[in-house]
Amino acid sequence: MPYRAPVDEYRFLFDHIVGLGQVTATDRFAEATPDMTAAILSEAGRMCEEVLYPLQRPGDMTPARLENGVVRTSPGYAEGYRAIADGGWVSISAHPDHGGMGLPMTLTTAVNEMMSSACLALQLNPLMTQGQIEAIEHHASDALKAIYLPRLVSGAWSGTMNLTEPQAGSDVGALRTRAEPNGDGTYAITGQKIYISWGDNDFTENVCHLVLARLPDGVPGTKGISLFLVPKYIPDDNGDPGRPNGLHVVSLEHKMGLHGSPTAVMQYDGATGWLVGKPHDGMRAMFTMMNNARLGVGGQGIGVAEAAFQHALAYATDRKQGRTPVRGGTGAIIDHADVRRMLATMRADTFAARAIALACAQAIDMQTATGEAHWAARAAFLTPIAKAFGTDTGIAVSDMGIQVHGGMGFIEETGAAQYLRDVRVTAIYEGTNGIQAMDLASRKLMDGGEAAHAMLDEIEAQAETARGTLPDLAEPVWQASETLREAVEWMVAQQDTTQRFAGAAPFLRGVARVLGGHFHLKAALAEGGDGPRSRLARFYITRLLPEHAGLLAHATQGADDLYALTPEDFAA
Amino acid sequence: MPYRAPVDEYRFLFDHIVGLGQVTATDRFAEATPDMTAAILSEAGRMCEEVLYPLQRPGDMTPARLENGVVRTSPGYAEGYRAIADGGWVSISAHPDHGGMGLPMTLTTAVNEMMSSACLALQLNPLMTQGQIEAIEHHASDALKAIYLPRLVSGAWSGTMNLTEPQAGSDVGALRTRAEPNGDGTYAITGQKIYISWGDNDFTENVCHLVLARLPDGVPGTKGISLFLVPKYIPDDNGDPGRPNGLHVVSLEHKMGLHGSPTAVMQYDGATGWLVGKPHDGMRAMFTMMNNARLGVGGQGIGVAEAAFQHALAYATDRKQGRTPVRGGTGAIIDHADVRRMLATMRADTFAARAIALACAQAIDMQTATGEAHWAARAAFLTPIAKAFGTDTGIAVSDMGIQVHGGMGFIEETGAAQYLRDVRVTAIYEGTNGIQAMDLASRKLMDGGEAAHAMLDEIEAQAETARGTLPDLAEPVWQASETLREAVEWMVAQQDTTQRFAGAAPFLRGVARVLGGHFHLKAALAEGGDGPRSRLARFYITRLLPEHAGLLAHATQGADDLYALTPEDFAA
Repeated sequence: MPYRAPVDEYRFLFDHIVGLGQVTATDRFAEATPDMTAAILSEAGRMCEEVLYPLQRPGDMTPARLENGVVRTSPGYAEGYRAIADGGWVSISAHPDHGGMGLPMTLTTAVNEMMSSACLALQLNPLMTQGQIEAIEHHASDALKAIYLPRLVSGAWSGTMNLTEPQAGSDVGALRTRAEPNGDGTYAITGQKIYISWGDNDFTENVCHLVLARLPDGVPGTKGISLFLVPKYIPDDNGDPGRPNGLHVVSLEHKMGLHGSPTAVMQYDGATGWLVGKPHDGMRAMFTMMNNARLGVGGQGIGVAEAAFQHALAYATDRKQGRTPVRGGTGAIIDHADVRRMLATMRADTFAARAIALACAQAIDMQTATGEAHWAARAAFLTPIAKAFGTDTGIAVSDMGIQVHGGMGFIEETGAAQYLRDVRVTAIYEGTNGIQAMDLASRKLMDGGEAAHAMLDEIEAQAETARGTLPDLAEPVWQASETLREAVEWMVAQQDTTQRFAGAAPFLRGVARVLGGHFHLKAALAEGGDGPRSRLARFYITRLLPEHAGLLAHATQGADDLYALTPEDFAA
Repeated sequence: MPYRAPVDEYRFLFDHIVGLGQVTATDRFAEATPDMTAAILSEAGRMCEEVLYPLQRPGDMTPARLENGVVRTSPGYAEGYRAIADGGWVSISAHPDHGGMGLPMTLTTAVNEMMSSACLALQLNPLMTQGQIEAIEHHASDALKAIYLPRLVSGAWSGTMNLTEPQAGSDVGALRTRAEPNGDGTYAITGQKIYISWGDNDFTENVCHLVLARLPDGVPGTKGISLFLVPKYIPDDNGDPGRPNGLHVVSLEHKMGLHGSPTAVMQYDGATGWLVGKPHDGMRAMFTMMNNARLGVGGQGIGVAEAAFQHALAYATDRKQGRTPVRGGTGAIIDHADVRRMLATMRADTFAARAIALACAQAIDMQTATGEAHWAARAAFLTPIAKAFGTDTGIAVSDMGIQVHGGMGFIEETGAAQYLRDVRVTAIYEGTNGIQAMDLASRKLMDGGEAAHAMLDEIEAQAETARGTLPDLAEPVWQASETLREAVEWMVAQQDTTQRFAGAAPFLRGVARVLGGHFHLKAALAEGGDGPRSRLARFYITRLLPEHAGLLAHATQGADDLYALTPEDFAA
């Protein structure tokens, strides 16, 4: 059951749903012509199908391991990584000044998704590097840029993010790693970091760690944190990897999935680091890195959803079992109503999550190209939704994929279970989905809900337009948008963020449900209301969209009843 | 983080929610006095806490394996099984005529749940034996009963169910295993069966397989299937295990979870079998076995939900991270609104699923004790809900348990991931949850919805009663019941079962949501509207119950739009 890159799907989304044309009409992204876009999609797609997808199972069965302090990666991963680097796929959005192609994030998002479908564990490596490139582009000195950017963009070196410590997870401000000035402009970094994805490997010449640490005069909490670049090998005068730095991998985690990706405990013992950005301003630099990484992780979820869907579809069209009299029946289990319901749910939600993520990427591109604040606000609003709904969809679709397989789904050889085991972490890392929801319900509504209302205005304007041709689809989307508007107003009216947080998770999911209705309606409109996308839109709008009402009822209950439940109540 | 058997929770449910007293007031179950019930719960609970729970992780890390044709079970499993057998916990509901205690299924359900919490992989063994005992009690000859029942009830021997073949899963009628008369009253069984849970072990003296096969004159499909008892060792004249039978384990599956439970491919090569029930009537006998096994599997899901909840709660009350100003704050992550929301959801749904399962068990007991048809109808109606909602809750709660743990949840040493990996299969085996939903939406409404409406009448009568004291909780439950009544009427009105099947899964979940509201309201009433159960009921009714509307909207869309989506559409 091979993976097939959904190139036509991206083209449709680019052309009709998220407006890539608007991006490529700007000077900044003028080079991303339709021909270029087509070539990128088809070449990246082919690599994913032919080179990366065959690495998925071997990575699961032969995890990365630590041997005498050295990380040995899974069979074929070195060759897979070489194909990614040689194809220029580590970062097609990096600035041309440093060897990048300067292409839109919209395109990067599609390419990242395809790589995630094909081999999530390996794709996580260049995704981390992409974030590092962005942080260095925005915050590092020219000297650091000159050494690091070309090598990261080419894939010769790879990058990691070092935030978490045992006592400092979601609460980054509690970190204890120290940075002491060496007197020569460098710093001695000392401390232990955990959950470092791709903390080491045996296929890049160097591994560059971006490490959050506290300077001697750093105050407690997040305001006393600085960001340092700490390479595995210290670059020599030519910029080549020189002597080993004072850091090592202590151990690798034994994880539920993503076995091909080594998750390291890293120890820094006075390792030499270079400051990135200003002292005590590390969180801002880290957020640059994390913001787009959140979109990237959302794309990971969507990529896995796509692959799990294809896998289940192939099984459902092949497996004969039982008989159901249906028009055009195939004799396979896809004829069964409940199997078809599952497949339609998987596909409809994958489309919704993908449209949200690409709309987010498009807003980032428009912000980059125009500098206009409303694009920045739109991107900021959509980012936590793209991350949380994308990864929740990855998990839900993978889980449904197991169910479509019946008993086979529980057997590892089938491959369906691996999707769920692999993708499960995406709802946790890069900020748990709970953190994403809190971000949406508080910081992303700090504008009084302006960005949210702008989105709702757009949804309702389109629904108004669609009333003429697709009234039965337009009306529920318009109604859902109104219900969501009330929920947004309720959120904005809460002065106490705890009141918002108590319903943040269902609020985020409710927003995603309504956005999904909007994009499905748009797809149906683009098709003239008749065709596969319109049929899928009808499925989504009549069956899945209604979920928003229950979610938004939950979202606006406030915190009082929740906190009336005491810890003692739970133990009762 | 030890597991604590929720003995008080069962007592509360027995006394106030599901009416165990009504059961023990019958002659048949008069021996189940309150003292006896208390003793059973506390003794079984202690065994689960002290003996079974420590076996959970070792079973995962050291799976059962096949060595030279012999199954070697996980470390400590033999001793764990011995404790189950010696305690009499294999089947406390078996009839006293055969060494059983004849206790109510309501009590068995609680005991099974606790064993599932403690060690699901091992508990699956006696659960299979329980089903076999029931099939033999109802359908086997006196001669077979005399040999097999005492040994199965004591746990000296264990039982399995052999239905599935590679081409015959949910479509059992497609099976090919043959049974040829030997001329001496026995039959020669030949064929291959897959997914045989506990197909062999190294701790019971004999393993008794109930095997579905076709006699030479059996017609194709389910009407030509007969049931045979095929022991691993053929009993000698004393009933002791004699010469080996013509069967063997071909291989064990490599599964996503439940590693401690050997899932076998079984080969029968002219193995000697004894007919159970009448020729060609095997499905009826198998349904006796499967019906209560479905309730048992629902209990597995609930048991795992309980354990995963306790595990997450312990973490959330221990783990310090971030600061949230809350009344009576503990400084641990349980103070965070979103964490508390997850824990409350886990606990509220576990309560709902448990109440449904115990209500189902109680109806079975009343049917057994009184023979009244309305109890049978109630039990039949609740069984697929208990199975599907119980297991879906097990999966959802385990998944949320991972999320509560954050990054730790993805690390296997934590133990949170194992709950999800183990419980995932419960939505698949003993009839997938899709099959359960189809059963509910078709066969369980063949009475024109009488059993459903009886349930709804009960829900609304209670809600009417509650209006006086708890109007804000009573009203939404009453309204939800009315919405559900409309959905039931819609279902009953569909002549074409495909129309029902297209919405069967959301229908089942919608029914469960409303039943959950009913039982939570009942708990609040029992407490006088003030206390931990009332606070949990408020959480459920205001936040989770609203989900029913979206589900029932989905449930009543019919099949036309669904089948308008062609297989080609999915590949688009």
